[in-house]
Amino acid sequence: MEIREVAGRGSLVDGRSHVVIVGGGFAGVAVARGLANSEVRVTIVDQHNFHTFLPLLYQVATAGLEPADVAYPIRTIFGHAPNVGFRHGRVRRVEHGANVVVLDDGSRLAYDHLVVATGATAAFFAIPGASQYAMPLYSLADARRLRNKLLLALEGADARADLDPQALTFVVVGGGPTGVETAGALSELISISLRRDGLRLEPSLVRVVLVDLADRLLTAFPESASRYAAKELRSLGVEVEFGRSVVEVEERAIRFADGERLETAAVIWAAGVTAKGTLAHELSVVAGPGGRAQVGRDLRCVNCDNIWAVGDAAAVPLSDDEICPQLAPVAIQSGRHCADQILHAVRAEPLEPFVYRNKGIMATIGRRAAVAKLPRGGVIRGTLGWLAWLGLHLFYLVGFRNRLRVMINWTWRYFDWPSGPRLIVADAETAE
Amino acid sequence: MEIREVAGRGSLVDGRSHVVIVGGGFAGVAVARGLANSEVRVTIVDQHNFHTFLPLLYQVATAGLEPADVAYPIRTIFGHAPNVGFRHGRVRRVEHGANVVVLDDGSRLAYDHLVVATGATAAFFAIPGASQYAMPLYSLADARRLRNKLLLALEGADARADLDPQALTFVVVGGGPTGVETAGALSELISISLRRDGLRLEPSLVRVVLVDLADRLLTAFPESASRYAAKELRSLGVEVEFGRSVVEVEERAIRFADGERLETAAVIWAAGVTAKGTLAHELSVVAGPGGRAQVGRDLRCVNCDNIWAVGDAAAVPLSDDEICPQLAPVAIQSGRHCADQILHAVRAEPLEPFVYRNKGIMATIGRRAAVAKLPRGGVIRGTLGWLAWLGLHLFYLVGFRNRLRVMINWTWRYFDWPSGPRLIVADAETAE
Repeated sequence: MEIREVAGRGSLVDGRSHVVIVGGGFAGVAVARGLANSEVRVTIVDQHNFHTFLPLLYQVATAGLEPADVAYPIRTIFGHAPNVGFRHGRVRRVEHGANVVVLDDGSRLAYDHLVVATGATAAFFAIPGASQYAMPLYSLADARRLRNKLLLALEGADARADLDPQALTFVVVGGGPTGVETAGALSELISISLRRDGLRLEPSLVRVVLVDLADRLLTAFPESASRYAAKELRSLGVEVEFGRSVVEVEERAIRFADGERLETAAVIWAAGVTAKGTLAHELSVVAGPGGRAQVGRDLRCVNCDNIWAVGDAAAVPLSDDEICPQLAPVAIQSGRHCADQILHAVRAEPLEPFVYRNKGIMATIGRRAAVAKLPRGGVIRGTLGWLAWLGLHLFYLVGFRNRLRVMINWTWRYFDWPSGPRLIVADAETAE
Repeated sequence: MEIREVAGRGSLVDGRSHVVIVGGGFAGVAVARGLANSEVRVTIVDQHNFHTFLPLLYQVATAGLEPADVAYPIRTIFGHAPNVGFRHGRVRRVEHGANVVVLDDGSRLAYDHLVVATGATAAFFAIPGASQYAMPLYSLADARRLRNKLLLALEGADARADLDPQALTFVVVGGGPTGVETAGALSELISISLRRDGLRLEPSLVRVVLVDLADRLLTAFPESASRYAAKELRSLGVEVEFGRSVVEVEERAIRFADGERLETAAVIWAAGVTAKGTLAHELSVVAGPGGRAQVGRDLRCVNCDNIWAVGDAAAVPLSDDEICPQLAPVAIQSGRHCADQILHAVRAEPLEPFVYRNKGIMATIGRRAAVAKLPRGGVIRGTLGWLAWLGLHLFYLVGFRNRLRVMINWTWRYFDWPSGPRLIVADAETAE
């Protein structure tokens, strides 16, 4: 692969190239880690001052973890790397010619290299009412809103000694890992609330329904894993329904293609993600499949020599005609690779193509139940799968203290101790 | 003391007297604890589903602790006591004649005994702009708002490479324990942010100013403690100013009686509390000093035979002509006493007057610096005072897991490890 020319640009305030990374998720943080303590100057721009560990958001939503357990200040991650800075803000546009990023407050950041790591967002497939009433799980704010909705639904039903089935019916749309994990955790939350918190709910009225268009759960896994997940979910009390197509979401109901209209307290949207409508779009790079930025094998955006895209925001190539799925390992690996390539470019060395190393995928269903698909196709499940899931998530969680806290929380939950932090957090927003 | 007649009332759905406690703070929880597993039925009504450990709110505001560290679900506290229930809601009014509490959603709770434990709120002394622009610290919502304001001020100043002194001037009004603790913790937060988080702030522009009308801090303590606190605060970089009277608070400034107008990023209000304008008022009980409910020595509201008031919401008698200060130990002790008296009343036994046992008072200034005034007037200070403060607060914190988490956080902070959870939490509220 040839080196395209990378011109020196006006931002060399101190003789160092300036790399601006837009987005502090898995991909953006991986790029910055790869550049930490190198010869370039790095600025991460994000509208949040923290990195969010998305794979555990569903546990915040179901009150198993607290927001601070899965979030970590970006500045603190790079406290040891004086060449990595943070800028709190939102990107409004990029001026390609001038090599300048313009932020919401009007300030301008000149860059030599720009990395688009803006992630993805929930895909609603233009289903009427979905973006308005269904609740996605793709940010800490989403998780907090969903948790409040769930806990308030339980308290409300208790207060009214409710016999209205709508008040205690929760529908999860999507049978991928997020949907499976959320449905399982929600079912456990409800069962703990009933047994330990003295909520006066009629158990037969509480329904957690998981619907998917496909004919099995976890379609990225082998069929044996799908059957296992469905069996485990059903043993937790989740109703699993296949071949169901959602045609509309209303404020308090969901309608299916077969004509059924189910009244619900909440519709949880775990039906997939898209990069459309996210920042990647506004950054004027060429869009590929699913709105993801079109990149070459070296992760440079097409028609750009100093703009790169990584993680969920990018159509990361898997081979010449395939792209990688939107997974955390892809984000981390593409981020690391991008950092290496930027250093190659700065050093006028040849660039290398990205090669994805498949680490397998996993999903957890509840305490002591998880499935993992190994790179070579094997499946681990049950307690062993759960321990693998647990260890891997602890390993990737940023910050020793977060790991310690999450480990404590999980130990509690494993032994079924009742002191989960079931706070209705938005409560704290309302004035006294 | 004679027994006044306590009539049986219609709420005896199961033959048990029904005690409704309005408020789940120190006082309300103490009443419910005293009645747990007794022959009465108890319902705690609160607009929040959690109990808040108010003495540590300033640590949430200064990002030393997370909201979940100082809050605990009320249902979980009483998970072992099947006779104690929780009702999520806000009281709209009390119908004394009918012995009914009416909630915001219109539902009615019949009671045999009603306990007013609605706490206090910040006192603004009718100073123009104070209630609008100054930030009190009396609820978890207050603490979250203040934290966001502080962290956003630091990020904003960093982003703009600000040389405007207003952007980094923080004024704390009130030299009592809350003011002293907040000023000390704020100063530590800023110093950690500067040293560890790579914020590009000009240290000479950062000011934490603590003002008080009196001529010393901590007026409830002996003068030696006041001098010690002022010296410690100044060594942390806090400017301590006495004899300063606030005449107005503006959006970005504070004006003093001597004519000075100081531009500030935030005014933190720690000038005192009042029960005026709180629920105690709306409950139509006779108001005494500071809007606190007037109660007899047995803690019954005057002119009521089955309405009691405890904690900050009540003018708890200290002697025939003195009332207790608004302190956590008073709330806890009056709550316990009230529970005993309700049981006496239900059992047609004589009531006993409340006797406050002075446990001393304490305030912390920073790591390894605190003062404690012992019941007999002695003073402990320095590291020993800090350890006493630490042990006592851990002891009173509800829930083993909260204690463990707070202990971990404090150990971190003590050793000055940089991983404090400095998340801008309201960030998470904004949509993606």
